[in-house]
Amino acid sequence: MTGIKQTRRATVTFRPHGAVARVPAGATLLDAAADAGVQIDAPCGGQGRCGRCKVRVEGPVVQRPHGHLSRAETEAGVVLACQTLADGDVAVTVPPPRERRQRPRGHAVAQPEALPLSCDWRQDPAVRTFAVDIEPPSLLDNTSDFDRLRRALGQQHGIKELRAELPILRRLSHDLRAAAWKVNVTLEMRDWVYGTYLPPRLIRVYPSAFGQRSMGLAVDLGTTSVVVYLVDFTTARVVDTASAYNKQISCGDDVISRIVYAQRPGGLGRLQRLAVETINELLMELQERNRIELYEIHEVAVAGNTTMTHLLLGLDPRYLRQEPYIPTVSVPPKLVAGELGLRTNALARVHGMPAIGSYVGGDITAGVISSGMFATDKLTVFIDIGTNGEMVLGNKDWLVACACSAGPAFEGGGVGCGMRATAGAVEDVWIDSRTLEPTFRTVDAAPPRGICGSGLIDLVAELFTTGVVDKGGRFDRSLATPRVRETEFGREYVLVWGDESADGLDIAVSEADVNSLLRAKAAVYAGIATLCRGVGVDLADVEQFLIGGAFGEYIDVEKGIRIGLLPDLPAQRFSFLGNTSAMGAYTALLCVNMRHEVLDVAAKMTYLELSADNTFMDEYTSALFLPHTDIEAFPTVARLLREAGIDGDPAGARDTPRDAIGPVKEDV
Amino acid sequence: MTGIKQTRRATVTFRPHGAVARVPAGATLLDAAADAGVQIDAPCGGQGRCGRCKVRVEGPVVQRPHGHLSRAETEAGVVLACQTLADGDVAVTVPPPRERRQRPRGHAVAQPEALPLSCDWRQDPAVRTFAVDIEPPSLLDNTSDFDRLRRALGQQHGIKELRAELPILRRLSHDLRAAAWKVNVTLEMRDWVYGTYLPPRLIRVYPSAFGQRSMGLAVDLGTTSVVVYLVDFTTARVVDTASAYNKQISCGDDVISRIVYAQRPGGLGRLQRLAVETINELLMELQERNRIELYEIHEVAVAGNTTMTHLLLGLDPRYLRQEPYIPTVSVPPKLVAGELGLRTNALARVHGMPAIGSYVGGDITAGVISSGMFATDKLTVFIDIGTNGEMVLGNKDWLVACACSAGPAFEGGGVGCGMRATAGAVEDVWIDSRTLEPTFRTVDAAPPRGICGSGLIDLVAELFTTGVVDKGGRFDRSLATPRVRETEFGREYVLVWGDESADGLDIAVSEADVNSLLRAKAAVYAGIATLCRGVGVDLADVEQFLIGGAFGEYIDVEKGIRIGLLPDLPAQRFSFLGNTSAMGAYTALLCVNMRHEVLDVAAKMTYLELSADNTFMDEYTSALFLPHTDIEAFPTVARLLREAGIDGDPAGARDTPRDAIGPVKEDV
Repeated sequence: MTGIKQTRRATVTFRPHGAVARVPAGATLLDAAADAGVQIDAPCGGQGRCGRCKVRVEGPVVQRPHGHLSRAETEAGVVLACQTLADGDVAVTVPPPRERRQRPRGHAVAQPEALPLSCDWRQDPAVRTFAVDIEPPSLLDNTSDFDRLRRALGQQHGIKELRAELPILRRLSHDLRAAAWKVNVTLEMRDWVYGTYLPPRLIRVYPSAFGQRSMGLAVDLGTTSVVVYLVDFTTARVVDTASAYNKQISCGDDVISRIVYAQRPGGLGRLQRLAVETINELLMELQERNRIELYEIHEVAVAGNTTMTHLLLGLDPRYLRQEPYIPTVSVPPKLVAGELGLRTNALARVHGMPAIGSYVGGDITAGVISSGMFATDKLTVFIDIGTNGEMVLGNKDWLVACACSAGPAFEGGGVGCGMRATAGAVEDVWIDSRTLEPTFRTVDAAPPRGICGSGLIDLVAELFTTGVVDKGGRFDRSLATPRVRETEFGREYVLVWGDESADGLDIAVSEADVNSLLRAKAAVYAGIATLCRGVGVDLADVEQFLIGGAFGEYIDVEKGIRIGLLPDLPAQRFSFLGNTSAMGAYTALLCVNMRHEVLDVAAKMTYLELSADNTFMDEYTSALFLPHTDIEAFPTVARLLREAGIDGDPAGARDTPRDAIGPVKEDV
Repeated sequence: MTGIKQTRRATVTFRPHGAVARVPAGATLLDAAADAGVQIDAPCGGQGRCGRCKVRVEGPVVQRPHGHLSRAETEAGVVLACQTLADGDVAVTVPPPRERRQRPRGHAVAQPEALPLSCDWRQDPAVRTFAVDIEPPSLLDNTSDFDRLRRALGQQHGIKELRAELPILRRLSHDLRAAAWKVNVTLEMRDWVYGTYLPPRLIRVYPSAFGQRSMGLAVDLGTTSVVVYLVDFTTARVVDTASAYNKQISCGDDVISRIVYAQRPGGLGRLQRLAVETINELLMELQERNRIELYEIHEVAVAGNTTMTHLLLGLDPRYLRQEPYIPTVSVPPKLVAGELGLRTNALARVHGMPAIGSYVGGDITAGVISSGMFATDKLTVFIDIGTNGEMVLGNKDWLVACACSAGPAFEGGGVGCGMRATAGAVEDVWIDSRTLEPTFRTVDAAPPRGICGSGLIDLVAELFTTGVVDKGGRFDRSLATPRVRETEFGREYVLVWGDESADGLDIAVSEADVNSLLRAKAAVYAGIATLCRGVGVDLADVEQFLIGGAFGEYIDVEKGIRIGLLPDLPAQRFSFLGNTSAMGAYTALLCVNMRHEVLDVAAKMTYLELSADNTFMDEYTSALFLPHTDIEAFPTVARLLREAGIDGDPAGARDTPRDAIGPVKEDV
């Protein structure tokens, strides 16, 4: 930075650190930060491609063109540090490093503000607690304890009828006397059968002296992860959340292997217990942290895919897997927590979200509800991607859904160095188009151990647009980089050398791995395309593209488009909704009318069985390329390739030397 | 029969035996029968008091006056053999010996003819089975199994909605496929909550090839005995019955000792299981005898007293016993057999008869229904006597009920030689007023082992009207018979000498035993009297006096009146209804409208708590005499005593020598 020839210099001050760098005028702010020892997030290595090195600047700067900032950001003085040159003394405010994956997955927590506007939780709560002052019995008034309670509820709260089940009646006489006839009575107020509301149902009787705490539990019962929300019924707020891997993983990673496991003697029972144990352990966690009693949890809503719902209820899942793929029930039956073994109040009603078919389950109807898709005019796609991809197309008037098997690639399975998105998983990747050297980031910033689904999407997108991999997913044989090498199993790209990895082994991605991802993304894209074709809608006309599910949260839209997983729509049409399954359960837990709504949604939604649909296979075959056979459907990717000088055609058919490829200019 | 002096002789021919006796003219037909070796039932020993030696006679006879025959009998030529003298050659037809106690107690079986006229079992059955032909699923029609079944039921039988619980759903997918989609579906059609009928509920799904057998179970859950009826729903007939002692007897003979037992750790659970085991063992018996499967039993109705109902349901009975004697529930909650552990179809609905109070239970409301009392204009008393006596007074417009503790005397308890009415129990007794020698009969004609309740009533009635016992229940000290003797515990009457008894010991009844019976009968009578007084009705105006319950079946009305257990009403006003509890359960099992009716009856009936009623204690004290302090209330007994020359006043205050008392003339 100092030299014989005095050049014009600039002072760059970094806030809030207070560090200062003296740099030649024209240096990037990113370089200045490196000089000053200030860390700025820039996973693409300063190529202006990732858009992550946003800072706020005051003072004279020159900006290179790029497409990563909104108008509001520009007006607020936000710039990309790597594409902004100091043209004098400037002050740079660096935002705190983005917290990523600090919380376990699926922890994006809904709150009352997220509830649909039509939610009735204040006016029409499903569960209510009443203080009742009961006249003690005498020889002259020998009314039974239950009728006495009922009479007092009628006189004091206008509640004329009351239902009770055996378990609460077995304690009732004792409970009333222990409370000296002054009790709080928790009732399920809004229980219905086919449109008929039933009289309130007794859930709990306890001394009024104890106060009136009333909680609910929303459960996202995922194949991999289970997330629970503890909800305070008086405020509708999520008081706490907890999550854990589904203990059923010990019986198989995916729904198919669990269905197979359920066929073993005792297998179904074991899976049922494991699902319940998973939830129960989370309950213990919530109980300890929040100093609640589990019997204060008076109602439960569960969203899960059809297999998970069957396993939780102990329903035989065998026919979900056998053609023609038929669930036992779509709408889970009326039941209480005690029937399943859940350790909430045993009389807490358990509401399961309704399914559409064997592969479009309650997690999806929950998503349609919580996303607001069921009530919008806009042509909307909702997708939830995991081992299976489920997608719904429609608006408030009509809905059509399908599901496809993506295979395990998105969840890090079936890939040589694949892993789930836990500590040490590479989750995003940038490749320098000149050196073909990668920059990457791992979950929890732990030493790299493997690559997860979103990391694989990133890596393949980068390999494609840096010309390492062609549109057919084959590695270029002509590259002069040690990262691309030949093994006995074929060619691979070494993402992490053994000396940097957690276990000393190279982390590499092979052609076979790339093909796994191609099949996965082709299935998802073909599903969406088939839905559109089925109802005669042009994919380009989709006004909202809503991405739900835990995995979806971590997809980079631009890279998802680049590999042809997502359709090439303007960025602003995409929204990441987080754990829509949990949020749907939360909505149904609080809003009685949303429980009706979700049944209407389920009744209204048309299920398209892809295995009965020839269009799907055609779409799938066309989508087995990067980004797609029909490059016209991906104009921004086509431009990117053009700008990078890559035709994407089979490697080796090209003869342009790698060195001749200039830096990729990004203005997507 | 032959002698020097030829007297006029008569030939008496007995039919159907064909035996012939040549006797002096003027001999009784009973003596002639003894001569001919023909057995005629005559427990009173030929005194004309029991009225049991009825025969039909053709030929010249002379009859002594007595009051045992109806006009119809007289017209048909029926006479009492002991009071009829052959006045020439006659032919006597002897009926077959009356079968008594050949069946176990409580086996008087209701049949459809006994159902109330308004019973709706044909038009509005509670359980129905439908044959349904379901379209198998395909890729183009992926409706869930449950919805597919529902759809077919709608199309083929007009049943639009359907409810199902977890247990049946857990088997549904398998069951439908195992039946190749041609199934019989058994539904609970008439399930309601507070007046609202709910959609049909799935009880069973099975191949239509198996036929459509559908059964129900009516249960009388008594403290001592449990009786079950197996009912064929297609014919309403009772196919078979079975009965056994309540296994809870191992935890105490009466309700109070069981309530005490329930307070022990695990005691309530044990009692609950024992009640269920008792019924389950009877079910096994029915299954074996009738070659049915227990899951073909689709509905259950249970009548029992309030304690038995609480114990069957596992409800804490503690407060039934503690003043002010409050049940947990009067109307048993909605439940299915599986919740209790009954081995019928686990989804069979269990209907418990509603109670009025802690000591007027579902057995009594069942009795009110099955007796028709709830629908009559006539002023009616219904009583059910056992350890507790329950009594209901009223008609179709109003009903008032009470209960009193009779103590164990009627069930053979608390009496030195008392026993339950099993083989060898003395069940009726006649005492020769001249010799004071008894004639008796035992259950199953077994060697005597003790005396049961009805035997004790008979014995005391006889001791009273033969002057052995005075109206205060004391033994006459002046009698010259070895049967009355002094022991270290006071005086007693020896009914059976050791050389005739089963175990070689004398069977005797002491003053203390007589007093036990006095207290028991006084409680019952005082209960009836208190009810009448409470509503301002004269006991003499009671138009029907209905006696229900297993014990009631064996009471001799005349002797019941003689000791002051029953009011002194004309014989034709009394009816013995048999096991009204079982019959009520049977009625409710078959007739949906009777289930409503019994709830109306329970709601309408006023419960009079005797322990809060001073009248009762007065009535009780007055009734602690034979037959009563107020002999005016028992005119037929007064006449009987007059005719017997007995004033009934304390023994020893009399000085008429015993021998001077002539034969008792009976024309009651």
